[in-house]
Amino acid sequence: MIPQETIVALATPSGAGAIAIIRLSGKEAITIAAQVFESVSGKDITTQKTHTIHLGHIVDDTKVLDQVLLSIFKGPNSYTGENVVEISCHGSVFIQQQIIQLLLRKGAKMAQAGEFTLRAFLNGKLDLSQAEAVADLIASDNEASHQIAMQQMRGGFSNEIAKLREELLNFASLIELELDFAEEDVEFADRTAFHELINRIEFVLKRLIDSFAVGNVIKNGIPVAIVGEPNVGKSTLLNALLNEERAIVSDIAGTTRDTIEDELVINGIGFRFIDTAGIRETKDVVESIGIQKTFEKIEQAQVVLFILDGRWMMEAGSLEAVKIEFEKIKNKFPLKPIVVIANKADLHSEDQKNNIQATIENILFISAKQKTGIDELKNTLLSFVNTGALRNNETIVTNTRHYDSLLKALEEIKKVKWGLDAGISSDLMAIDIRSALFFFGEITGEVTNDELLGNIFANFCIGK
Amino acid sequence: MIPQETIVALATPSGAGAIAIIRLSGKEAITIAAQVFESVSGKDITTQKTHTIHLGHIVDDTKVLDQVLLSIFKGPNSYTGENVVEISCHGSVFIQQQIIQLLLRKGAKMAQAGEFTLRAFLNGKLDLSQAEAVADLIASDNEASHQIAMQQMRGGFSNEIAKLREELLNFASLIELELDFAEEDVEFADRTAFHELINRIEFVLKRLIDSFAVGNVIKNGIPVAIVGEPNVGKSTLLNALLNEERAIVSDIAGTTRDTIEDELVINGIGFRFIDTAGIRETKDVVESIGIQKTFEKIEQAQVVLFILDGRWMMEAGSLEAVKIEFEKIKNKFPLKPIVVIANKADLHSEDQKNNIQATIENILFISAKQKTGIDELKNTLLSFVNTGALRNNETIVTNTRHYDSLLKALEEIKKVKWGLDAGISSDLMAIDIRSALFFFGEITGEVTNDELLGNIFANFCIGK
Repeated sequence: MIPQETIVALATPSGAGAIAIIRLSGKEAITIAAQVFESVSGKDITTQKTHTIHLGHIVDDTKVLDQVLLSIFKGPNSYTGENVVEISCHGSVFIQQQIIQLLLRKGAKMAQAGEFTLRAFLNGKLDLSQAEAVADLIASDNEASHQIAMQQMRGGFSNEIAKLREELLNFASLIELELDFAEEDVEFADRTAFHELINRIEFVLKRLIDSFAVGNVIKNGIPVAIVGEPNVGKSTLLNALLNEERAIVSDIAGTTRDTIEDELVINGIGFRFIDTAGIRETKDVVESIGIQKTFEKIEQAQVVLFILDGRWMMEAGSLEAVKIEFEKIKNKFPLKPIVVIANKADLHSEDQKNNIQATIENILFISAKQKTGIDELKNTLLSFVNTGALRNNETIVTNTRHYDSLLKALEEIKKVKWGLDAGISSDLMAIDIRSALFFFGEITGEVTNDELLGNIFANFCIGK
Repeated sequence: MIPQETIVALATPSGAGAIAIIRLSGKEAITIAAQVFESVSGKDITTQKTHTIHLGHIVDDTKVLDQVLLSIFKGPNSYTGENVVEISCHGSVFIQQQIIQLLLRKGAKMAQAGEFTLRAFLNGKLDLSQAEAVADLIASDNEASHQIAMQQMRGGFSNEIAKLREELLNFASLIELELDFAEEDVEFADRTAFHELINRIEFVLKRLIDSFAVGNVIKNGIPVAIVGEPNVGKSTLLNALLNEERAIVSDIAGTTRDTIEDELVINGIGFRFIDTAGIRETKDVVESIGIQKTFEKIEQAQVVLFILDGRWMMEAGSLEAVKIEFEKIKNKFPLKPIVVIANKADLHSEDQKNNIQATIENILFISAKQKTGIDELKNTLLSFVNTGALRNNETIVTNTRHYDSLLKALEEIKKVKWGLDAGISSDLMAIDIRSALFFFGEITGEVTNDELLGNIFANFCIGK
């Protein structure tokens, strides 16, 4: 199962920077590196201690490719558990390529996506849920998702699962022992204690399963549908929110605004804005389809922002039109929180505001341009996020695969519980317990197969 | 002069990757890192040896930001000559920011562009031309520019300058000694030997100055003007060239094609293609301006590719029209190499080719689409590059600043030579020698000032 080749890949982001790291892992990592590395002080790196750094040159035959620092990690005290060499070279794309190609010529193989972490898993350095957390950690772009991934990577989730699994395993052994003495009708497993354990497991599983709703939105950002006609000030509003929250990001990493245009982090929680067309009474078939799509998008959203042009609302009859639209969404989605926002409301008098509020409750008056009312909007958005679990450092499930396994485990546990209540025979109960244990094992990787591993690690970046 | 603050910056390219490196340099680098680092094995990093690596966590108060590897380099055995700490963290942009912000709060300052290398220079780890080579090395994207930058960074250029400078300095001392004995009319400096030295210096300076023409095109790519009407197959041709030469690049680093669309590396030499409008006889004023611009672009180019639609050339009279255009460029730029290319020539018979060749000498027949004639074109392009110096490992000047200083030094050396021939007095000659020494010193940084340093290091990336 454990691969024999020594793999190589660029571990730092692609592109030019001050330095880049090229990583080798495998039995031959140090000897392959030694073929191309000339230490400045004439040291032989194959005889150096683990966790040491050496200055020298990468040399291709007689041609010096770069001056580098070379770090040595000897297995099992490395990320992968194998011998690892990290070459810290100058960050030109050309140099990165030359060194990687040279190492390939000297016998290394190009690493597959996630192969370093896969090897760490195969060598027992991480369990499967921890390995998955590494990818989540790299992808995390806000406080909340980072915190969950970090907790998972440090084993919080695995520990919780492992504890339940161990207790269940103990009982399984006792139940299975009973099978050997089936004719004597003894009960090694205390049925009351077992009942208590099954209840506890059921409770924890339900809590973990419930946490997925929170975990999923935290990982992917909370989906917020924006309903509003063009020109009501949607992008001005997003910018007003972005300007304040994203300033630090662009200071340091030169993040491209384009790709995150509709994503926003407020107090460490990610929000994902989904643009929609407006909704109004129509007999036009094409427009009806547009409105149907809008309803579908609203369905996916956790919160709906219903943005209106505040100036237009002051016209005669407009308020009634707004009310009709609002009621329409509300009737269609009775459980969905809808925030009605009147933008461009800086010219409204108090009287006008009161008048509007009498028709539409809890309407927010803002001016995206003047940046008034933005804090209220932020607080409103945050009020829809259940961050209780996050605050209490509880384990939160973010991974669909884990969620599926937990659901299946819960199903088996319910069968066990039913069997206990019905007093079914030990042999039948043992089968259900084994099934539950199987699904626990799937999460942490005690139970696994090549296809599953392939699916998981294919989503990693190369070099990790 | 040497700054006291401890600086911090991201050293790897920005964006997400498997890992990222955050670099600290300065007196307090290790103590600042110690405030936020908790070693897994409980080690105190302030007492660890230089060039060692430690596994642990970056902790902000009680919150764990990441599991990291921390490398310690103690001054003067570090890149900057100061204490340096490199934190190898998970490559999420969020984590990078969090750790940098934490270090800033603990007393580090954000590094300026090139500040790490500036400090290396100020601490005597590199001379100025070597420091400049670091930036060139990171920017180099082909074999030739990489080789020159590498040679310069390793001190090849500095050594050549330093040797001349030292010999000149010896003579300067002798000449200046003569001043103390002016009334006795002694000559400590052997005039014949001095004459020989000045000739040698003049020769080397001229060679270095001449190498700048080669160095400049190698650093920036050899400018090639493409003259050709739309649809003659210009981009198909570029793609045909690119596909073969760039395949390896896109395999590894996911290089974006967009930014290098018009740049090409053939056998390790960079070519930069400059698109132009076509040229033809016209009375139209606007079109005349376009043609004027084309001539300007041709002026900047080292080679002109004159691309024609081979099928069109077979029409009656077309061949004469081509000849007229070709003669026009040739007359305007008698010294500029012009390569005439007939594209879409896969349907030409040998007779037709001979007929065309009789009118236009050395015409290349290619088919960009069928990829025929591409190798001949490559060889033709390469034949215009004087790579002799490169092959012979001679020092090549690529930096405009060095070029300027060399020109000024040569001017002073010529004055010294003239003075020697004219038998002027030692005191006058000493002034010219001192001037020449000044310009030598400017190159390697023995002579410098804040403004010069500011200009040089402002072009570096942050983190280097």
